Amino acid sequence: MINVGIVGATGYAGEELISILLKHPQVIIKSLSAKISQPKKISDIFTRFKGRIDLICDKPNTKNISANCDLVFLALPHTASMDFVPDLLKAGKRIIDLSADYRLRDISIYEKFYNIKHKDKTNLKYAIYGLPEIYRNKIRDARLIANPGCYPTAAILALAPLVSLDSSFDLDSIIIDAKSGLTGAGRKPTEEILFAEANEDLRAYKVNVHQHMPEINQELSKLADRKVQVNFVPHIVPLNRGILATVYIKRIKGIKDFKQSLVSLYKRFYKNEPFVRIRPESEFPRLKDVVGTNFCDIGIREDGYNVIIISVIDNLLKGASGQAVQNMNIMYRLPERMGLL
Amino acid sequence: MINVGIVGATGYAGEELISILLKHPQVIIKSLSAKISQPKKISDIFTRFKGRIDLICDKPNTKNISANCDLVFLALPHTASMDFVPDLLKAGKRIIDLSADYRLRDISIYEKFYNIKHKDKTNLKYAIYGLPEIYRNKIRDARLIANPGCYPTAAILALAPLVSLDSSFDLDSIIIDAKSGLTGAGRKPTEEILFAEANEDLRAYKVNVHQHMPEINQELSKLADRKVQVNFVPHIVPLNRGILATVYIKRIKGIKDFKQSLVSLYKRFYKNEPFVRIRPESEFPRLKDVVGTNFCDIGIREDGYNVIIISVIDNLLKGASGQAVQNMNIMYRLPERMGLL
Amino acid sequence: MINVGIVGATGYAGEELISILLKHPQVIIKSLSAKISQPKKISDIFTRFKGRIDLICDKPNTKNISANCDLVFLALPHTASMDFVPDLLKAGKRIIDLSADYRLRDISIYEKFYNIKHKDKTNLKYAIYGLPEIYRNKIRDARLIANPGCYPTAAILALAPLVSLDSSFDLDSIIIDAKSGLTGAGRKPTEEILFAEANEDLRAYKVNVHQHMPEINQELSKLADRKVQVNFVPHIVPLNRGILATVYIKRIKGIKDFKQSLVSLYKRFYKNEPFVRIRPESEFPRLKDVVGTNFCDIGIREDGYNVIIISVIDNLLKGASGQAVQNMNIMYRLPERMGLL
Amino acid sequence: MINVGIVGATGYAGEELISILLKHPQVIIKSLSAKISQPKKISDIFTRFKGRIDLICDKPNTKNISANCDLVFLALPHTASMDFVPDLLKAGKRIIDLSADYRLRDISIYEKFYNIKHKDKTNLKYAIYGLPEIYRNKIRDARLIANPGCYPTAAILALAPLVSLDSSFDLDSIIIDAKSGLTGAGRKPTEEILFAEANEDLRAYKVNVHQHMPEINQELSKLADRKVQVNFVPHIVPLNRGILATVYIKRIKGIKDFKQSLVSLYKRFYKNEPFVRIRPESEFPRLKDVVGTNFCDIGIREDGYNVIIISVIDNLLKGASGQAVQNMNIMYRLPERMGLL
Repeated sequence: MINVGIVGATGYAGEELISILLKHPQVIIKSLSAKISQPKKISDIFTRFKGRIDLICDKPNTKNISANCDLVFLALPHTASMDFVPDLLKAGKRIIDLSADYRLRDISIYEKFYNIKHKDKTNLKYAIYGLPEIYRNKIRDARLIANPGCYPTAAILALAPLVSLDSSFDLDSIIIDAKSGLTGAGRKPTEEILFAEANEDLRAYKVNVHQHMPEINQELSKLADRKVQVNFVPHIVPLNRGILATVYIKRIKGIKDFKQSLVSLYKRFYKNEPFVRIRPESEFPRLKDVVGTNFCDIGIREDGYNVIIISVIDNLLKGASGQAVQNMNIMYRLPERMGLL
Repeated sequence: MINVGIVGATGYAGEELISILLKHPQVIIKSLSAKISQPKKISDIFTRFKGRIDLICDKPNTKNISANCDLVFLALPHTASMDFVPDLLKAGKRIIDLSADYRLRDISIYEKFYNIKHKDKTNLKYAIYGLPEIYRNKIRDARLIANPGCYPTAAILALAPLVSLDSSFDLDSIIIDAKSGLTGAGRKPTEEILFAEANEDLRAYKVNVHQHMPEINQELSKLADRKVQVNFVPHIVPLNRGILATVYIKRIKGIKDFKQSLVSLYKRFYKNEPFVRIRPESEFPRLKDVVGTNFCDIGIREDGYNVIIISVIDNLLKGASGQAVQNMNIMYRLPERMGLL
Repeated sequence: MINVGIVGATGYAGEELISILLKHPQVIIKSLSAKISQPKKISDIFTRFKGRIDLICDKPNTKNISANCDLVFLALPHTASMDFVPDLLKAGKRIIDLSADYRLRDISIYEKFYNIKHKDKTNLKYAIYGLPEIYRNKIRDARLIANPGCYPTAAILALAPLVSLDSSFDLDSIIIDAKSGLTGAGRKPTEEILFAEANEDLRAYKVNVHQHMPEINQELSKLADRKVQVNFVPHIVPLNRGILATVYIKRIKGIKDFKQSLVSLYKRFYKNEPFVRIRPESEFPRLKDVVGTNFCDIGIREDGYNVIIISVIDNLLKGASGQAVQNMNIMYRLPERMGLL
Repeated sequence: MINVGIVGATGYAGEELISILLKHPQVIIKSLSAKISQPKKISDIFTRFKGRIDLICDKPNTKNISANCDLVFLALPHTASMDFVPDLLKAGKRIIDLSADYRLRDISIYEKFYNIKHKDKTNLKYAIYGLPEIYRNKIRDARLIANPGCYPTAAILALAPLVSLDSSFDLDSIIIDAKSGLTGAGRKPTEEILFAEANEDLRAYKVNVHQHMPEINQELSKLADRKVQVNFVPHIVPLNRGILATVYIKRIKGIKDFKQSLVSLYKRFYKNEPFVRIRPESEFPRLKDVVGTNFCDIGIREDGYNVIIISVIDNLLKGASGQAVQNMNIMYRLPERMGLL
């Protein structure tokens, strides 16, 4: 049995981790903590857990966490994880960090997009980007996982096979038009995410300046082995859970011999993946195909030089806590779907 | 033309007042103010008003408001109106107060339910409860209107004819099970009214202790000419606008001669009302019949000793700003539907 | 392992059964059928099941079902189950029927409320009402379970302890004001359950004439050992899953010694129940406490002679398919929470 | 006063027309008709109109309509309008057709995308495409208006200034990623637009094959004076009203002198338009800015060679019935905003 702790247990990702791990046959939740004014039973914070878990959620204390846990999930806001990682690593704990703090290789980009100094350059270099479909082997023995962002998960999985294996595309033409539900905005109350504001509304935000864009660029560049710079426009849609990313990319004009079907390329690329499902040509997944699951479903349409790819994930599962548990399963040599299906 | 000011222009009731008054042929909006950190164009606060109104919204200044306006709408949170009413009345202005500050005759009840000292007992006695269907004559010449709460409007209109004119009912048996959309909770951000919390959820709150209950009791008691004490359970429903109140009341056991139909009683009672519509027996209105309008629609079913009455209103219109404009129309001898239909 | 069949696999209850049973460690789904124009992979009907189950869904054929299954779930519309029960029972199969066909003891009431002749009076008398909290012992060895309706489950669990054990209440005063999400209306397309109709709307329907009312009356009467007749007003609320029932009941006037707390009575009554949770006095559950689970959560407030009880369930789980699986677990001596937590 | 008739009064566009025209000071609704099994008061079909309009809605009868109306709105499904236009024109009536029947110049394209033979080629050539911002002068004296589709209105207004006046763009690079609420799907019940299906879901549909695509292509081609072929991906979003179109277009590589700001170009182009509002650079409208109004709001961001344009409309107003009334106002030399603001 793995003894785990969750720091940041009161956010949406933390709540979702509790929910998953309560059903995971190889896990015991030993510690729950969060920025909280006073200690409180987690079942009084989330009444849905009444009768299922009675742990006290308290302010995080690295020593206590280290004493009780083998693995720590950091479900913290961006910039808060750096305060915990160094001590936990020193104590020999394995960490899955759901924040953005250890995702970007280039500190200057991190500091620009998150508007804060990075405080832990030392450990940054040990962090493994926790996207199993790309980094499974490195994840196995990682001490520190930088669990991918929700938008990057949807975007990278939609593009990885094409970007790494098909040279007929103009990688400067990538457009990612993403639509996300409101849990993606977190639980901190602000006016624009009030029900009466977001309901019956629709809006784009951080158009081409969203902090997940450099994360997408970094990973696609690695896969393509050249610099890739996408256009990325996220939208807020009035629903609770899920991301649908509509991706547009063009073939290089003049190239004629692209007769391999992308669908078959994608099917091969993801052949052994437990959580990626590829649809037949011109069939597209709907969000509900994946909400409540750890799946990423992908549909593709080729229209001559224009290609449209749609990927869907549950932002709290494959886009956050589900993927974190998938990473844990890999790290502990458990069946990858354990607790997730 | 009536020169009006709105204090509290940035809340839902204030926004709705602007929206109505922009189309009202006899009104000029002269002043917009609110608790705000710095002056700002109202069309920058509510971008929907771009190109339609360019007034600056600033902190409220009683002198300026008095200098420019004949009538002032106070669309403030409960307990804030008392700070403005005395000076505005002294300056000879007419006031329509959408808060609860001048609704309850009994100060001790006000102080108990709103948990604050009342600061303006002097003017309380001049306030007229702004429910036109009951107090139209007094509204005409009032200086200070206490505009009714949203739940009380729905509840009182559902019960007024019966309570005042039919003695066959057990007035101790009244149950009001009310369902409200989220604009009723206001615009101040708190966790429980976030989209991702309220969406796909349903909850009762302040069960039998809601601050609108004494307002309902006060008015029904007046109409019945005896003490009436209702059971009142409000619920939050995931939609933006509207209240549906399901009212249960019983006939006194033993009484046999109740053969007058309530539907005809209600139709007579509301015969000349421009904003009340009564349905045939056992036909009930849906919320959408009134959303976006100032109507209150009512359906009734008599089952022997049990009677069920359902009333629906738009909480921001008949339940707040629409009713306020209806009151203004009455005060200024304008056609009562002007600007409202 | 239990070999099960689902007849009516394409409705919401059928889909939910598949979803639960796919994760149930002691079940193999052997047969899926429905009123369908031609055979189709279930994963083509519900694309969310792609890669998880590949069974063909075909028109139901009693012989094939009998040959392959030990237990059959009938997730059919009311009045359709009667066509399958006799043959399946004859073939020695155990049946859990989610329709209303075998719930009402009094055929004349069934025929009145469902407006059809009952075709299988013979087997009606063997049917056990599948509410484990009341009939667990009989369920164990039943051949035919009449799985309770969603509203009745919420209503009966909210009232059972009080009605059976506390004689200080006026059982003629019961009012059940219930609010349900749209999956309760089924998947057959009609105008009033279209998104653009039901969204931002709220309505009562079948006020005091809903077909679930006699089911509630029947079971409460049994528990009270006298005739109980409730007032029952169901409402449609714009959300997908869940029922919240607000129940009002009065103490008999004059009775003084009701100092036993209902909360403690309820806690005792449901002490060993795996799926009922009682809140402290005047604390009420929200719908989200139970959505996605098989729990029924109950909150109680006593106000002198007036008592308010609120119960919440997921209509597709404790209100249908979850309860059906709970019944199956009981019938097969499995842990009652297996596959449900 | 203009005497108008509405054919197709029971759909969303028809209902919206009634709602607008009831408040229009220069219009009398004389005739309401629809495909309906038997005559029925419109206020019994749409109970929200009770006490406001009592006309009978019957099957359409061209003779009666002609006898009573000057102007006829055809709010019919595509392919149904052709049955009414010839006779109504012959009778000298002016027609605003909200269907697609007279929008496409090229009959072969119409027949391909709508999968039906066109039955009225004669009148097709007299039809004016009713987009006032482009065709105002022709609309003035038109006998037959082909009122634009909802997606085309949003898309064309987002691109018109750029496509007609700025030659630095690659017109082969246009991508239109559109998001629409559910009223866009009409009122005919099908499973996929049921509340419980569409709520909490998100899906693309008719990817690059939607019937509004040729309409967009036709109009942009005219404006550009060359063939334009867009990529068009519509999505269904769980809300009632509104379209948000995110448009992507690229500058031609190598062109350097594009220093005129698009925002100022757009402001000039739409300077005198009563219903188009342009936002400052990189500021984007939200859907709620226009829901319930006839406005089209547009925001623009220039990122070097990449340009992102977002337009929002209410699909039932500027995207259908509001635009139809705007066209009527133009035809009758009324102030263009009359009845619409």
